[in-house]
Amino acid sequence: MNITNLEELFFHELRDLYSAESQILQALPKMIEMASDADLRDGLEKHLEETRGHVERLDEIAEECDFKVTGHTCKAMQGIIAEGEELLKNVTDAATKDAAIIISAQRVEHYEIAAYGSAAAFASELEYGDAESLLRDTLNEESHADETLTGLAEGGIFTTGINDEATDE
Amino acid sequence: MNITNLEELFFHELRDLYSAESQILQALPKMIEMASDADLRDGLEKHLEETRGHVERLDEIAEECDFKVTGHTCKAMQGIIAEGEELLKNVTDAATKDAAIIISAQRVEHYEIAAYGSAAAFASELEYGDAESLLRDTLNEESHADETLTGLAEGGIFTTGINDEATDE
Repeated sequence: MNITNLEELFFHELRDLYSAESQILQALPKMIEMASDADLRDGLEKHLEETRGHVERLDEIAEECDFKVTGHTCKAMQGIIAEGEELLKNVTDAATKDAAIIISAQRVEHYEIAAYGSAAAFASELEYGDAESLLRDTLNEESHADETLTGLAEGGIFTTGINDEATDE
Repeated sequence: MNITNLEELFFHELRDLYSAESQILQALPKMIEMASDADLRDGLEKHLEETRGHVERLDEIAEECDFKVTGHTCKAMQGIIAEGEELLKNVTDAATKDAAIIISAQRVEHYEIAAYGSAAAFASELEYGDAESLLRDTLNEESHADETLTGLAEGGIFTTGINDEATDE
């Protein structure tokens, strides 16, 4: 890997995201299985479906921009997922585990928010209009998923108050 | 580690952040050394100083809440930093390297935004008022650092347009 200009950095970013999304596709079903709260499970199921769409969008961009999107392993997402799995293994109470799933998933979302945000800015700069539009669609879905998790955690309209349950133990 | 309630999860979160901040204290000076743009260097220098304050706040919270803040290694931040260091090693052009520093630093910021956001919500839920206030102070600084980086990347008031320079190479 030798990156000498913004376009090469942009392609690298997309490879990084492709690897990250692929890892998330493996990790999310395990989180869903561990979740107790029905709204949390539904939210994660919906995001798993969206994640499949994010991978398809990256494939589409790679075709449009004519580069190979595979071949990189995102060490950052490996670390974020490893951290989350270690944590969840050690949480024994069901309501507390739901809280831990939320905070682990939000760390995943925020990596993607940072990465899609800069990738969309690069696409704009490089005048890859279709790619920018697809990246912004995904960015919006990632941001929305993060907000949904915050709503669940803070006892918004989607929940009876997961954090409250955890404190009752 | 055995976590059975929200308070134990809260303390774990703070240990995770303490390890993350300590790793950032090691990584940031290397990023500053690699940066060419003066505003970027200044922004990172300022954030390095803030990061020292974040560690002090975590020490203060640990004393207030009576738990040991050391003893955990944040695998997520290890991965995020490893990913960034690998990327920067492979970027040969100075202006492109500045862009790569920004996107790497924003991934670090977003992990912290997610983690301080949930830690502050936990502190509120557990009625640790002083801790919540300190965590929100840090969260605001992390968010502001992220916005500063976006301003630099997109050619806002802090810059002559780092991304533009990178495309000219």
